[in-house]
Amino acid sequence: MKDQSINATFSCPIPITDYKNILLAHGSGGKLTNDLIRKMFLPQFHNKHLETLGDGAVLPSMDGRRLAVSTDSFVVNPVFFPGGNIGSLSVHGTVNDLAMCGAEPLYLSVGFIIEEGFPLDELWQIILSMEEAAIEAGVQIVTGDTKVVDKGKCDRIFINTTGIGAAWPDMTIGADQIQPGDHIIVSGDIARHGIAIMSVREGLEFESTIESDSASLHDLVNTMRYAGKIHALRDPTRGGVSSALNELADASGLGFVLHEEPIPIQEQVRAACEILGLDPLYVANEGKLIAFVSNEDSKYVLEAMREHPMGKDAEIIGEVVDDHPGMVVLKSRIGGTRVVDMLTGEQLPRIC
Amino acid sequence: MKDQSINATFSCPIPITDYKNILLAHGSGGKLTNDLIRKMFLPQFHNKHLETLGDGAVLPSMDGRRLAVSTDSFVVNPVFFPGGNIGSLSVHGTVNDLAMCGAEPLYLSVGFIIEEGFPLDELWQIILSMEEAAIEAGVQIVTGDTKVVDKGKCDRIFINTTGIGAAWPDMTIGADQIQPGDHIIVSGDIARHGIAIMSVREGLEFESTIESDSASLHDLVNTMRYAGKIHALRDPTRGGVSSALNELADASGLGFVLHEEPIPIQEQVRAACEILGLDPLYVANEGKLIAFVSNEDSKYVLEAMREHPMGKDAEIIGEVVDDHPGMVVLKSRIGGTRVVDMLTGEQLPRIC
Repeated sequence: MKDQSINATFSCPIPITDYKNILLAHGSGGKLTNDLIRKMFLPQFHNKHLETLGDGAVLPSMDGRRLAVSTDSFVVNPVFFPGGNIGSLSVHGTVNDLAMCGAEPLYLSVGFIIEEGFPLDELWQIILSMEEAAIEAGVQIVTGDTKVVDKGKCDRIFINTTGIGAAWPDMTIGADQIQPGDHIIVSGDIARHGIAIMSVREGLEFESTIESDSASLHDLVNTMRYAGKIHALRDPTRGGVSSALNELADASGLGFVLHEEPIPIQEQVRAACEILGLDPLYVANEGKLIAFVSNEDSKYVLEAMREHPMGKDAEIIGEVVDDHPGMVVLKSRIGGTRVVDMLTGEQLPRIC
Repeated sequence: MKDQSINATFSCPIPITDYKNILLAHGSGGKLTNDLIRKMFLPQFHNKHLETLGDGAVLPSMDGRRLAVSTDSFVVNPVFFPGGNIGSLSVHGTVNDLAMCGAEPLYLSVGFIIEEGFPLDELWQIILSMEEAAIEAGVQIVTGDTKVVDKGKCDRIFINTTGIGAAWPDMTIGADQIQPGDHIIVSGDIARHGIAIMSVREGLEFESTIESDSASLHDLVNTMRYAGKIHALRDPTRGGVSSALNELADASGLGFVLHEEPIPIQEQVRAACEILGLDPLYVANEGKLIAFVSNEDSKYVLEAMREHPMGKDAEIIGEVVDDHPGMVVLKSRIGGTRVVDMLTGEQLPRIC
């Protein structure tokens, strides 16, 4: 899969003398839909499965490996942001969800919902980013769908990606595998994606631009699984680290203790959180994972993570306890203790 | 899978004293998202894969069978229409796309994009319809995602479903299998779905309500494949029969001759098409298929179809020829001949 080259050209292949914006007819199932598929999607997402242009794709069997499936719709606003766009995000997000299931990502389906009038040039940039992210992650985009809705009936573009992976045979992970004594590891600095988006929306300026951490994590997971016994994985996206941990505390019936001190966070991101009145534990990440690892193995897993570009700032940030089942408790830098609850209300709408 | 009972209750399980409409916070990934999942989705779409509530579902291997994958986003307007709603439609549509690939539908993922303020009672009705359609089709909804966008940023509710099936081992179908001499069979009367939707939008009234034909076709395909050699299948949804045939004519490099006389169409639907100025060949269907069958086998396949409730009005409506490659030609009732081209422009936006 890696031998595909990026067919990168930044001018949209549909001559703009024909049309330069999406028309309702691009979603008709007729001639213009066909145009869009043949001139924009196929040349970019080229692979033999997609090229059959059937109602779906027929793929090889998985040689007895269990399937993993994950779906995500992306409605991020703005569509283009520092460090990525809705296209790259939609690939990273689903690739990561598969990796968090303990699976090797293999295939993606893509469903576009596009607002009438959306510029074809921007669609082309999104497609280029998706293909680049897919190649990096070693996944193929094998089937798709495009709908166009009338102006004002959606906000520019929404993308659903659904991923199919093959479970790593030696990996059984999940909330039910978490044990008292497990160490909780985060793969790097938190809250960057949410703050990158909010900075654009709020017009905040910093010395240097805060970029989203949006990235694929499956290769990091692949490295980690050789280094030690992993009990659970979660990517702290919407609702941030606190929501991911609360979900797992609830599902495992165990208590988690978090230590504020070692939680990595960029200085600028911390400053932005203060300006915006946000707790970084609740802010979305798109290129970070939280791992629950047996305490005997955690130092080996941490070492392996730190040698990988996606895990170089990894830290042990907490442990699993028998006390306070279902609850996440933070020990603060100054020695205090507070309960970190699940997000109530909506802090950052449309972050992904 | 068939032993699941429909847990049908028509009052929404989230007490309306809490809230009766969707809030932005239902898409936050926090407490209200969790509420929605635990009180509405899980009790209805109950199965062991979904209940793990991981970032995705891990499913059994397919015993060496090839996978089929298909995705579709549904943006139909109105959300509720005679004969169905966006929920049942989103199951039927993807189940049918898998069946058209020659696959047994097994699993669905579901991605909701919901507008802030959407009534929870309507969401509950949609969920009930999805589960009913899924049980009928023998598919399990194994993973999902919910996003909420601010009021005015989408039109009520959009649903993506992505389906995974196991290819029937003895079935190799596709445009490249179509041969000159093949008969073209339609499984029943055409244009009903599109007209059902348009009648609501335009406020047309007839003696009896025109109902959508939205239904799952995989069991009909399963019956057909024992009766004779099927070369290609397509469900004529957006763009109708003409667009489906044009795509296949183009992909196969062969010519198709259609006969107007035997094409089944309800009298009321024909009348509505005349009022609305629509050609029924371009109007969407959601419970019909077109099959390309070897001419030796077509009578057996037709007989088998007519014994199935989904195919009782099946007819042979045309044949494949060496002439006029890539072109679909209609022989009209009065003996004339005209080219049936692919749809240009958009006749019926947001029909599915």
